[in-house]
Amino acid sequence: MKISARNALEGTIKEVHMGATTAHVEIELKGGGIVTASITNEAVEDLGLAVGKKATAIIKSSDVIVAVD
Amino acid sequence: MKISARNALEGTIKEVHMGATTAHVEIELKGGGIVTASITNEAVEDLGLAVGKKATAIIKSSDVIVAVD
Amino acid sequence: MKISARNALEGTIKEVHMGATTAHVEIELKGGGIVTASITNEAVEDLGLAVGKKATAIIKSSDVIVAVD
Amino acid sequence: MKISARNALEGTIKEVHMGATTAHVEIELKGGGIVTASITNEAVEDLGLAVGKKATAIIKSSDVIVAVD
Amino acid sequence: MKISARNALEGTIKEVHMGATTAHVEIELKGGGIVTASITNEAVEDLGLAVGKKATAIIKSSDVIVAVD
Amino acid sequence: MKISARNALEGTIKEVHMGATTAHVEIELKGGGIVTASITNEAVEDLGLAVGKKATAIIKSSDVIVAVD
Repeated sequence: MKISARNALEGTIKEVHMGATTAHVEIELKGGGIVTASITNEAVEDLGLAVGKKATAIIKSSDVIVAVD
Repeated sequence: MKISARNALEGTIKEVHMGATTAHVEIELKGGGIVTASITNEAVEDLGLAVGKKATAIIKSSDVIVAVD
Repeated sequence: MKISARNALEGTIKEVHMGATTAHVEIELKGGGIVTASITNEAVEDLGLAVGKKATAIIKSSDVIVAVD
Repeated sequence: MKISARNALEGTIKEVHMGATTAHVEIELKGGGIVTASITNEAVEDLGLAVGKKATAIIKSSDVIVAVD
Repeated sequence: MKISARNALEGTIKEVHMGATTAHVEIELKGGGIVTASITNEAVEDLGLAVGKKATAIIKSSDVIVAVD
Repeated sequence: MKISARNALEGTIKEVHMGATTAHVEIELKGGGIVTASITNEAVEDLGLAVGKKATAIIKSSDVIVAVD
């Protein structure tokens, strides 16, 4: 499957924190740095997300804010 | 300023492509990989974004999709 | 590839309208109804999007607003 | 009220799952297929959302990702 | 129509800037301050948006970032 | 820090409601009106958000929907 979202950052799952309906998943990127995703609990179970598993953070370019000092 | 968005990926601007109203800004991350942001032309001018400038890609965790193979 | 976004609506591309940087792609859903996506021109070229091609509209559940009369 | 969001998919509420602060609402679309919305618990109560009620899934075009096989 | 998005800020349209596919609409809020919306050109025409017209900025709570000094 | 998001609405925190993973923060705007943000519990703790504290609601223009009667 190819998708239109321009950003795909590969890494490894470092932590999965399940909430009542929403889970937080931390992905340690290959090049260093952590990306946190807020997704549904169903998605965590459906994708079998667990610490140590390879995963990619996908982000639409219209969802990226640029900051400068 | 401190912000609630959980993801802040530091890098250097690699390309700025201005459209009619919307610009695409490519940020080469410190750890490697490129993040593309789709922002307004005004924001590019307001922040003085240009190739070679330090910049941070800021992403809300609710805007991150997780993918696995 | 499996992704965490909960919504995947299958259909056929009905129209592709390229802008300066941003393109609008209309997908006619299998069950009827049209979904319009606003994506980058690069994504249109990268995915080879064209009228008549099968495509899926992917939407994060946190991006869906519910309305009632 | 008319709104700028380009996507309005009509259906019937199939399930409402309340969390601590965030609820998941499943809408079965007229043409088939399910759309899941992640909204606040307050919104569920404010709109009186319940199984069997008519509802429309509203999605901004900039929140739609296109995927192809 | 009632919608699940928690934020509805009323005001008057101050400026409409059409792009190739994407338009920027500035709304001067009742209580002061400007909100800029980036929407499709079709939406501008469909809603008949023009300077001086009453309009409401609708924002999902999951799209609001909080900042502190 | 300067950011590309075009909307920054200043106000004072009126309520903080913590969920299992997601918190709702209500900001009373200077000019009147309330903006609700849905952010992570970590962000609330990290920024020390509490009732009475000054805060700014930051919103990307691509996340603003325009409505007219």
